[in-house]
Amino acid sequence: MNEAGVCMKKILNDAHQFVDESLDGILLAHSDVLHRVEGDPRAIVRQDAPVQGKVAIATGGGYGHLPTFLGYVGQGLVDGACVGNVFSSPSADAMLAVTRAIDGGSGVLYLYGNYFGDSMNFDLAAEMAADEGIQVETVRVADDVASASLAERQKRRGVAGIFYGYKIAGACADTGASLAEVKETTELALNNVRTMGMGFSPCTIPASGKPTFDIAEDEIEIGIGIHGEPGIARQKTGTAKELVAQLLTPLVEELELSAEDEVSVLVNGMGSTPLEELYIAYREVHQWLFDKKIHVDRPFVGAYATSLEMAGFSLSIFKLNDSFKKYLHAPARTPFVKL
Amino acid sequence: MNEAGVCMKKILNDAHQFVDESLDGILLAHSDVLHRVEGDPRAIVRQDAPVQGKVAIATGGGYGHLPTFLGYVGQGLVDGACVGNVFSSPSADAMLAVTRAIDGGSGVLYLYGNYFGDSMNFDLAAEMAADEGIQVETVRVADDVASASLAERQKRRGVAGIFYGYKIAGACADTGASLAEVKETTELALNNVRTMGMGFSPCTIPASGKPTFDIAEDEIEIGIGIHGEPGIARQKTGTAKELVAQLLTPLVEELELSAEDEVSVLVNGMGSTPLEELYIAYREVHQWLFDKKIHVDRPFVGAYATSLEMAGFSLSIFKLNDSFKKYLHAPARTPFVKL
Repeated sequence: MNEAGVCMKKILNDAHQFVDESLDGILLAHSDVLHRVEGDPRAIVRQDAPVQGKVAIATGGGYGHLPTFLGYVGQGLVDGACVGNVFSSPSADAMLAVTRAIDGGSGVLYLYGNYFGDSMNFDLAAEMAADEGIQVETVRVADDVASASLAERQKRRGVAGIFYGYKIAGACADTGASLAEVKETTELALNNVRTMGMGFSPCTIPASGKPTFDIAEDEIEIGIGIHGEPGIARQKTGTAKELVAQLLTPLVEELELSAEDEVSVLVNGMGSTPLEELYIAYREVHQWLFDKKIHVDRPFVGAYATSLEMAGFSLSIFKLNDSFKKYLHAPARTPFVKL
Repeated sequence: MNEAGVCMKKILNDAHQFVDESLDGILLAHSDVLHRVEGDPRAIVRQDAPVQGKVAIATGGGYGHLPTFLGYVGQGLVDGACVGNVFSSPSADAMLAVTRAIDGGSGVLYLYGNYFGDSMNFDLAAEMAADEGIQVETVRVADDVASASLAERQKRRGVAGIFYGYKIAGACADTGASLAEVKETTELALNNVRTMGMGFSPCTIPASGKPTFDIAEDEIEIGIGIHGEPGIARQKTGTAKELVAQLLTPLVEELELSAEDEVSVLVNGMGSTPLEELYIAYREVHQWLFDKKIHVDRPFVGAYATSLEMAGFSLSIFKLNDSFKKYLHAPARTPFVKL
């Protein structure tokens, strides 16, 4: 890394071809499962799309968050995804291309993170789809408690908790539920999901060659977004136990968790934080919840929503009930995620 | 990262508890599949071990390479693993504990990377196991072409190609093959596996606080080992196409690949190299092999053998035949890897 915090030792031919060449690689490696919509290289759908009679789930967003978004295209999760440039919204045209390719006659649920550019383009795609007779409903994920107060929850960013949205929506759609039912179930589930993260060091966007943020050698940023958006505090780093308690406290408070509640936990690595460290975090999460008699039904530990090579992690809590548990345990399989 | 290249912003309570606390987290998260052998916190086996009548596969090595080694414990891969400190050999006692716990009466295959400390301790464990009437055979993985010449192949290090060893040994053992057959099949397969990697930036071992190597801002190291062992050349970084060609050429030459051969490819990230970049590498691999009419049957792209947060990647090629393909495609499932 040079003085500006920039490391450009990347596997890269041309920074401006970063997204398309990476997508080429994904399509070449996983052509048995994934399919590029003809005429739109940024629109990727299940090989077997459209699945007749099933509500289809569509997602998308900026590139650089693998396995989010594209990596969740497959059985039991989402039917198609479109991607933009790194950390930039995809086009309405790409989303429309995905929508046409996955609609199996029962309508399409748009499920994506709550960002201005994404909302604008996906709303436009929804209008165009409606003009073609395709029914579209929308659920925006806004799980990041650090990005706005509870009173302004509709302003919150969508981060790693989108994983739970995909899981519930995909499993619900697989039961043959209607578009209205899939939307309602997914909204109910996401009302019970909260996330907060912290950043240790930035990533570098290939086309700009600039780090997403600057941070002192001994500082971390609490509540950082997955594009390096500012969080709520800068502080000296602490022990794993302290860091985990700091992230968990607001999540558990807002979800009003109490003894005998059951939750799923997602310990998400943001890119370059080793799995070995994420499991130390999980140890602390488990112990902290155990002490409060809160039970963990199904933990997930790994890279689920990244920010290229950013270092840091987030914790997501999903407060479960029997219906959510059934959907959470349903099988799902993509080239990136197998549950 | 400070001037010495050290970043200690880690999820960590106590550097000297790094391994044991991380293992605690793994065991807490995956108690449905993984089990700690009583009396030895560094010995982890399948929950359903021993599997009666099946040859058991044991592995192990230093910590810090997840999912290698422990992450391959599960169905269709290995039955048990022991880990040492970061990048340090596990003890013979831990390997013996694993051996006892997984032997289902048909013997145990030791399958691990070719390093002096590991060999010494695993050989000692094999002797102790033999004294207890447990039959043990050994296969050492030595796939890293940069670490010694072909004439001195027995001196080579074991790196990411160990994944193919696990896959073949595990699938062969699941057919009910004898210990001699599993050993022979695994050796034959590994004779057809070659790997070479390159490093971009080092990792920091928590207990030492020192980077594993120093490297200039604009340089990469060709042929680096997964503990930061020196490679064969330092050079300015190049395009993805150039880097991939540089790694592939010696692998393809040594395996004597020619038109119509079929291979599996593993593009392995060493820690902090983003998946997005690994897929750019895969694109180049695919194109390079395609131009030579060499077919890719089953590619794997992701983090399979890491070095904490080291940046860099390796390519492994496995020259296939029908028998290897059958084993490669057999299902396998651990908390870390699902095929």
